[in-house]
Amino acid sequence: MKRSFFVLALALNTFPCHADPAAAPPAPNGITLPKDYQNWRLLGVSQRTENGTLRAILGNDKAIEAARSGQTHPWPDGAMLAKVAWKQKSHDKFATAVVPGEYVHTDLMVKDAAKYAATGGWGFARWLGDKFTPYGQDAQFAQECLGCHGAAKDADWVFTTPAKLP
Amino acid sequence: MKRSFFVLALALNTFPCHADPAAAPPAPNGITLPKDYQNWRLLGVSQRTENGTLRAILGNDKAIEAARSGQTHPWPDGAMLAKVAWKQKSHDKFATAVVPGEYVHTDLMVKDAAKYAATGGWGFARWLGDKFTPYGQDAQFAQECLGCHGAAKDADWVFTTPAKLP
Repeated sequence: MKRSFFVLALALNTFPCHADPAAAPPAPNGITLPKDYQNWRLLGVSQRTENGTLRAILGNDKAIEAARSGQTHPWPDGAMLAKVAWKQKSHDKFATAVVPGEYVHTDLMVKDAAKYAATGGWGFARWLGDKFTPYGQDAQFAQECLGCHGAAKDADWVFTTPAKLP
Repeated sequence: MKRSFFVLALALNTFPCHADPAAAPPAPNGITLPKDYQNWRLLGVSQRTENGTLRAILGNDKAIEAARSGQTHPWPDGAMLAKVAWKQKSHDKFATAVVPGEYVHTDLMVKDAAKYAATGGWGFARWLGDKFTPYGQDAQFAQECLGCHGAAKDADWVFTTPAKLP
């Protein structure tokens, strides 16, 4: 029966190859991955040249409204930012274009100035791969996030400047 | 009065510095820029190394549904793809990160196999800068689009492979 389903699903091209964010285990600090984050709107894109990744930065409604009205110093409580990272590769039909390859991880920042006062007002989390393996052994992992994000402390700990999308 | 408004708007950080897509003139082939395209969901990102630009590719609901169900060979009528391009720059607080700088243009592809049969089933358009200056002198400009997109003819003329967003 299972084999029949597998063959049928392949034939119909409907095999559920995408993981379900709702099934992602919580991060060690208790933060969960919003199940609809793939539907959030665009805040920006980036490339990390030292590790060859392309990224898209998405925001929930609260974050998008804040970005579009310039209210990001600080970002409001309830704003959430998701950064999706892929290994980059050359486009097979456009030699000078670089595009997403393998999916690597999704990072999440959740703003709650009181709840996350110890980490800049933000809750941090990361899930690795499409099995959504939470990053970090215990809640102290967020100190690693902060160590890097400290460079953006004067931008409320956020590296992303919302890209102009006229 | 105008001057007062200008000063007040600057003070409140609410000066309408973003252009309004609804005011974009139609392309020479009559295609108009959907006024809500900034709210479309993410299909992918890319970088063009030969001209130093970063891009985000967004899709309307029809395109997102097609992408997520693997129905993009061909894309369905009604699917629309918008590609937003920015000049790339180094992040001022993260030396190895590349991020969007100046906004350059927004490209649009509108699928209607019958209406646009002469151009691969797609209507093409581009608007330059935040004044949304339509690209092309007359409707023949789309032949230039096709000349490049021909390399992706076996992917229904679309260079973007929807990025995995689990």
